[in-house]
This record gives sequence, structure tokens and C-alpha cells, in this order.
Amino acid sequence: MSLNFCFIGAGNLATHLSKAFQNKGFNILQIYSRTEKSAKELADVLSVKYTTSVNEIDENADVYFVAIKDSAVSEVLSQIKFNNKLVVHCSGSLPLSAIEDFSENTGVFYPLQTFSKKREVDFDEIPVFIESNSSKNQEALLQIANSISKSVSEINSDKRMLLHISAVFACNFVNHFYTIAAEILKSKDIPFDVLKPLILETALKVQEIKPEKAQTGPAVRFDENIISAHLQALNDFDEYRQLYMSVSKSIFEHYKK
Amino acid sequence: MSLNFCFIGAGNLATHLSKAFQNKGFNILQIYSRTEKSAKELADVLSVKYTTSVNEIDENADVYFVAIKDSAVSEVLSQIKFNNKLVVHCSGSLPLSAIEDFSENTGVFYPLQTFSKKREVDFDEIPVFIESNSSKNQEALLQIANSISKSVSEINSDKRMLLHISAVFACNFVNHFYTIAAEILKSKDIPFDVLKPLILETALKVQEIKPEKAQTGPAVRFDENIISAHLQALNDFDEYRQLYMSVSKSIFEHYKK
Repeated sequence: MSLNFCFIGAGNLATHLSKAFQNKGFNILQIYSRTEKSAKELADVLSVKYTTSVNEIDENADVYFVAIKDSAVSEVLSQIKFNNKLVVHCSGSLPLSAIEDFSENTGVFYPLQTFSKKREVDFDEIPVFIESNSSKNQEALLQIANSISKSVSEINSDKRMLLHISAVFACNFVNHFYTIAAEILKSKDIPFDVLKPLILETALKVQEIKPEKAQTGPAVRFDENIISAHLQALNDFDEYRQLYMSVSKSIFEHYKK
Repeated sequence: MSLNFCFIGAGNLATHLSKAFQNKGFNILQIYSRTEKSAKELADVLSVKYTTSVNEIDENADVYFVAIKDSAVSEVLSQIKFNNKLVVHCSGSLPLSAIEDFSENTGVFYPLQTFSKKREVDFDEIPVFIESNSSKNQEALLQIANSISKSVSEINSDKRMLLHISAVFACNFVNHFYTIAAEILKSKDIPFDVLKPLILETALKVQEIKPEKAQTGPAVRFDENIISAHLQALNDFDEYRQLYMSVSKSIFEHYKK
């Protein structure tokens, strides 16, 4: 008999995860979101019910997946009757203990990926990290996770936090640097397109070579001429000049060793 | 009749560029490098001559490609007799004027890519930016560039410098953040492999979506709970905590607008 899931949250992660579960035959009962637009949008995609009221959350789910902003978790979950069903949050940085007051059966299901509504992702290839409060729940979560990903690991809350931080560097901060690069190019009317092969090759390289060995550029060559020319050329971008200095210094320190 | 090239320099860029030229039927006459090991290694790959002495650089080349550290260019070129042949440097940040004392025919050939000796790259797909001191030389360089790349643009020294800076952000700094992520993971015995799908997806995303629209993570959500938890968890990594703060602040400022 297939399991019934409810989703608390209808953002990027909830969207991709609920679709992946539905594709694997799990039954999505209902979507809850405070924001009607998001709730309806995702419910429509899945052809399921939705609600914007915590009191109307379906009590018949086997598992409740919580995919909302960390800071909202406590407040939202405290208003929901879970009847000790399995409640699973999907956050990298929230400890399992953050939800233990809301059910006797709790877990974490953390997929390590960046999700945007417009891009399809292959859940099979996404590393999923799970944790739970009992071996029974761990077994249940493991089965669920294995059914949608080829790479499932058990990890505790402390380690998961560091994993999340590493993802912030390798994805969020990286993407911000793409944005800065785009802005610098725009100031000279150069299209962002010219950077695309470089960005892709930089990411492809570390699929094979350790990033430490893949480093190139003026900072790792200690090329002070270039660095000072760049700092001068960044005159109109004070904030980015500061970042340029901090990151160059960090590269410098790293390879000096 | 095919053109004869000499390479001044035998590093990553010289290696990939000379191979690409040879594959397209250009004749590599000779490799010069101060370092015998590098000179010999590249000369062997190409089955051509090499020298470590500036006095023995072949005077019969049509074009001299200079692919050495910016800070060494003046010193090295001042010792070479070019007989006013076309001298072309390959640097992003060196102005064309930096080599005009060494020949009456000068140019720049700047391929926007990260080169590591161990990785093959498809030169066809690499954007190449050229500049030169006369329309005759520009025409010659354009023909040479078009023969190995599908994407050739003419660009002046000022713009090329900003282009190089944007590449430092989008590649060198990005790769350093991969290195930081790897180090953070290592502290908890988590293999770097788990980040590979995320790194790749982050780079693939901006091939289609503007990086500004692709941004995810705690900083863009203004999720102060997560950010302060991360800063605390980075206790053992003082340097990376500073970077975490600076980049988060920059994201914050960017999306506040």
C-alpha cells in the first residue's frame, strides 16, 4: 500500500520534492501554504487538494514533509495536530530537535541541491541526507529516500549544518559571484554569455580534479601587478573591490602554506 | 602557406593554445621557456624544438605568442629580437601598449577560459578577444582566431581588463569557494563528492537563467536565524566566517534594492 504525504510549504523545494514523490507512486494528499497562490499553484500541478488554514491540514497522512523557512517552522508546526504521525523537515541547518515537540515521530530529509521552479532536476542524482528519532523511523525514511535518490546517507544534525554551510559557499556564494561578474560586464556592455563556457568548465573541472588543484588566476600566482591593476579598475565598484581583496587574500593565504 | 608561430611561455595557456593551433594546421616552430622542464615537456608534446635562451629564439616565425606571467612580460620581451614581426600577448589585464616597445606590429589574443594541463578543452567553444595596433594586424589576428574559435570578438584593453576581473569572480573566486567547501566538509569527514551535483547544477542554471534570478539560500531569503547559526558553526574557521559575513552582506544588499 502506498504512503500518503502532506506537504507543509509550497516553495521551490516542496515543488520539486512533491513532484518527485508523486512520480514514484507516492500519494500526495494535500499541500498547505500560508500563501494561497503558492498552495494552489503546486496543488494544481499535482492535481491534489490544498489549504491555507492549519486547521484544515489532512490528518490522514502517513508523513508530513515540512519545507518552509527555518524561522517559521516552530510557529507553523505548533498549530498543527500531527497525532504523532511522522513529521519530517527538509532543512539543512535546523536540528532534528527543533521539531521534537510536535510529534513522537520525527525526522529530517535534506536533499543537497539548489531548486528553482523553472528548472527540472533529476532527483535520482541528488544526494539526500536523512536523520530521525528512532530506528523504526530511520528505516521508514531510508526506504522513502532510496525510492527517489541513488545517493542516500545518514547524517546527524551537527554534520548536516556544516554540510549546509559548505553548500552555501559552493552554490549560493558562487551564484552571487556570477551575479557580480554579470554586473561588471554590463558596465562595459559586454554580454554575460561570454562567461558561460568558463563557468561551466570551472564546475566540470572539479568533478574530476580536487578544487585545490584546479585553482588558477592571479591570486594563486601571487601576481601583484594584476591584482593591483584590478583593484584600481574596480574603482566604480567599491563593494566588489572589498570582496576582491578579501577573497584574493584568502587564496593567497591558502597557497602560501 | 601556413603561418609559423613561436611560443614564449610553456604554461597551461601556452600548452592548450599551441596544441589547438597545431591541430588546425599552423606550424609551431619553437617553444621558449625559462624553465627547461616546461619547455621540453610542451615541445615533446608538439614534436618541435625548444630553447631556454632568449638569444636562441627562432627569428623566422610570423607570429610570436607571449603566454607568460604579466609581470615578466617586459623583462623577457626586451631581450628578444622580433624584427618587427607580429608579437601577440595572451593576457586579460595587460594593455596592448605594454608590448608596443618591442615591435611595430603588436596584438592581443585573449581566450576566456581556465586551463589546467590535465584537462582537454574544446577551443572551438572558447570566446577569444583580440586587439591590435593596426587594421592589417587586426585582420591577420581575426583570421587566426576564427580558425580555432567559433566566438571571436574585438575588444579594447580597458574593456578586456573588466572582462578579466569578471572572470576572476566567476572562475578563480568560485573555485576557491569550492576549495573552502571541501575543507569544511573534510573537518566532518564528509567526502567532497556530495557537492558535485550541486556545483554542476549551479553552473548549468546560469546557462539558461540570469544569475540574479537564480539566487537561492539563506542570505537572499534574509534568513537571519540560519545565518547566525552558520556563523556560530564556523567557529573553527575564522577566515571563512569573515568571508561568509562579507558575501552574505553583499547578497543582502543586492536583493534589498
